[in-house]
Amino acid sequence: MSEPVICGVSFEDFLIRMEEFHGYRAPGLLLGGLMVDVALRELGQTPYLNVVTETVVCLPDAVQLLTPCTIGNGFLQVLDWGKFALTSYDRLTLSGVRVWLNPNALFNYPLIRSWFERSNRSTQKPPFEELSSEILSARADILSHKPVRLHRALKDSRPVPTGRCPECGEFYPLRLGSACPACRSEAYYIYQTSPKQSTRD
Amino acid sequence: MSEPVICGVSFEDFLIRMEEFHGYRAPGLLLGGLMVDVALRELGQTPYLNVVTETVVCLPDAVQLLTPCTIGNGFLQVLDWGKFALTSYDRLTLSGVRVWLNPNALFNYPLIRSWFERSNRSTQKPPFEELSSEILSARADILSHKPVRLHRALKDSRPVPTGRCPECGEFYPLRLGSACPACRSEAYYIYQTSPKQSTRD
Repeated sequence: MSEPVICGVSFEDFLIRMEEFHGYRAPGLLLGGLMVDVALRELGQTPYLNVVTETVVCLPDAVQLLTPCTIGNGFLQVLDWGKFALTSYDRLTLSGVRVWLNPNALFNYPLIRSWFERSNRSTQKPPFEELSSEILSARADILSHKPVRLHRALKDSRPVPTGRCPECGEFYPLRLGSACPACRSEAYYIYQTSPKQSTRD
Repeated sequence: MSEPVICGVSFEDFLIRMEEFHGYRAPGLLLGGLMVDVALRELGQTPYLNVVTETVVCLPDAVQLLTPCTIGNGFLQVLDWGKFALTSYDRLTLSGVRVWLNPNALFNYPLIRSWFERSNRSTQKPPFEELSSEILSARADILSHKPVRLHRALKDSRPVPTGRCPECGEFYPLRLGSACPACRSEAYYIYQTSPKQSTRD
């Protein structure tokens, strides 16, 4: 069998890039890579590629490794839905392809199923080599895809009027209300005093 | 003047990595890199590094380029607050350092100010070379930082009980309700029929 290729990248190279970027060999990234592969092939060439992932786990890194779409350049949108699915689309035509893990097909692949259901922590983690081998042989068999049309482009390119928060003085988008989220009790932090403090005001 | 170094990466190398990953030379990524540099230096060595960015724009890519934290491995959290700020922290001790753009200091740096206020689209985009030169000479002068303590680690490592959505049959986190977000009218897409359709069920 010839070496598998994912979005034009050899499996071995993909593993290296995965380790460099994601930190370790992750089955979710391999499966995600195969999903991106299907999504791009079905969508066809577009200079206006955007991608949406429906989970924050693994999938966004597969997209960032294999496409020009990143979270910081806005061409990747990440929804925290906990669904192992993604959509590639053309942001001008709003035509796209959604790819998802076919839950019915999982039953034929015991290792993939065991890994996928590990979100419940009820089963033990299968070794990466065995799991990746099953993922590569299952490949399109466990992935479903369908053409979709988006309601709107998800990258927000409208101007964002900003102003200074009356509490902390930092800039924030005025549409969020009369103070920034941190000053409206959503702060994930509390300031500490410390000898190292060297804030400039 | 010796070549600037950002998180141990030379300015020239950082520009190359920026273009490869983000797609182009972005002032926000350069400024973000300097913020990460301050955040890591002030936090000190930790094997349990996590980062939070308070905007989806540019900053997440600076973090993903310069630290082991990515959106897909969960060590980077991205808040859609529209604030140019980030926090590096140790996920075991919950001690961290928040770094933000000091709005008062901006007034001394006309190009940076003009770029930052471009979110309003009222001013023209300054050329990257001039802007990056001003950013590098301003450096810590426009950044504020303070030690913080987090209320809790933002990476959710608890098991996520999942089940099949009664509508679409796909797996989703049961905590989200009796159906998945897409089936509860949050879908960003509508399915199209097409001759290319080849969904397996």
